[in-house]
Amino acid sequence: MELLDAFKWRYATKKFDPDKKVEQVYVDKIIEAAWLAPTSSGLQPFEVFVITNQELKNKLVPISMGQEIVADCSHLLVFAAWDNYTAERIDQIYAHTTSGREQPADRYQAYTDRLKSKYLNRSEDENFAHTARQSYIAFAFAMAEAASLKVDATPMEGFNNEEVDKLLNLSEKGLKSVTLLPIGYRDEENDWLVNMKKVRHPKDNFITELA
Amino acid sequence: MELLDAFKWRYATKKFDPDKKVEQVYVDKIIEAAWLAPTSSGLQPFEVFVITNQELKNKLVPISMGQEIVADCSHLLVFAAWDNYTAERIDQIYAHTTSGREQPADRYQAYTDRLKSKYLNRSEDENFAHTARQSYIAFAFAMAEAASLKVDATPMEGFNNEEVDKLLNLSEKGLKSVTLLPIGYRDEENDWLVNMKKVRHPKDNFITELA
Repeated sequence: MELLDAFKWRYATKKFDPDKKVEQVYVDKIIEAAWLAPTSSGLQPFEVFVITNQELKNKLVPISMGQEIVADCSHLLVFAAWDNYTAERIDQIYAHTTSGREQPADRYQAYTDRLKSKYLNRSEDENFAHTARQSYIAFAFAMAEAASLKVDATPMEGFNNEEVDKLLNLSEKGLKSVTLLPIGYRDEENDWLVNMKKVRHPKDNFITELA
Repeated sequence: MELLDAFKWRYATKKFDPDKKVEQVYVDKIIEAAWLAPTSSGLQPFEVFVITNQELKNKLVPISMGQEIVADCSHLLVFAAWDNYTAERIDQIYAHTTSGREQPADRYQAYTDRLKSKYLNRSEDENFAHTARQSYIAFAFAMAEAASLKVDATPMEGFNNEEVDKLLNLSEKGLKSVTLLPIGYRDEENDWLVNMKKVRHPKDNFITELA
């Protein structure tokens, strides 16, 4: 299947079949897609939590505007971004890059100095806005991969971020929740959205060619 | 090719071959992927500009930190998000959705009322932060599609947003630039990054399973 066909096939599933679990090999691929996503300066400033624990999924329903999909899905992915950039975080990833590429220890010194002088002088809010944006690329890559495997997924922003942070102890890890991505298989008979036409802005209003 | 292989193949191209142009059928698919991307409440609060005009591409170099890739690429995609949510914009997209789905005129009345009471009471900054995040999903879908077609692409945030907005007259359209995506074909001999190993956080630091 061409990827574009997968993008046409996918939709924000509103009802999952709670008895159908996504195969582990597919879950691994979806997470790997998120892991491979590009990020600003390669800092990958976010983490992914993969929840299958049913009790935990149930606890998420009331803090996700009552949406049952977070409980009925097979796996719930939580994208949580760094609450801030720090010198340690920047050094850690570049130490890893340096050893991964078998380069001299100071190969990225000047570059990480520049990153630090930029990020460490900005407010925590501004930095979190930036880390959160990076996590959206991974969030989208995970959706693309899921669609390519014909695994259903529902992009979600509608939840109480602070309550999710508390439930998953994210602040002690220096993280804040950004998005949720329940994955699973659609309950076709009970999903009101499944047969609705996908509507987008007319392309003329969306694309401007400057030739 | 599996999508995951495409994600492994792609990299942020640092040098494009200026003589190799991306076939129009591929460009169309990459833009369609962006167009199909899901967005919060389906509002699709952004537009895409596709620049092939060489003079315009050249003008972008000095306001893109001197990065020649914006001139050497085949097509330069600019993702520009709504500067704010307005009642008109919300009504327009839902009028289009209603007619596209052949539904009664007031089908989404209660829903759009809720959206308006939420967005129209928030600051412009807060709303733009939200529209910009949505555009990242489309930005990522475009990258995924490009990779699946073996078209090179470079995700870019490093440019002077205000100068790009001025150059493309974005503010009069109620838009603000968010990201650039030059696409084209790599100049393999002159790209310092092409043979570097792709490095990511160790997976154990990136993924937490809560089973």
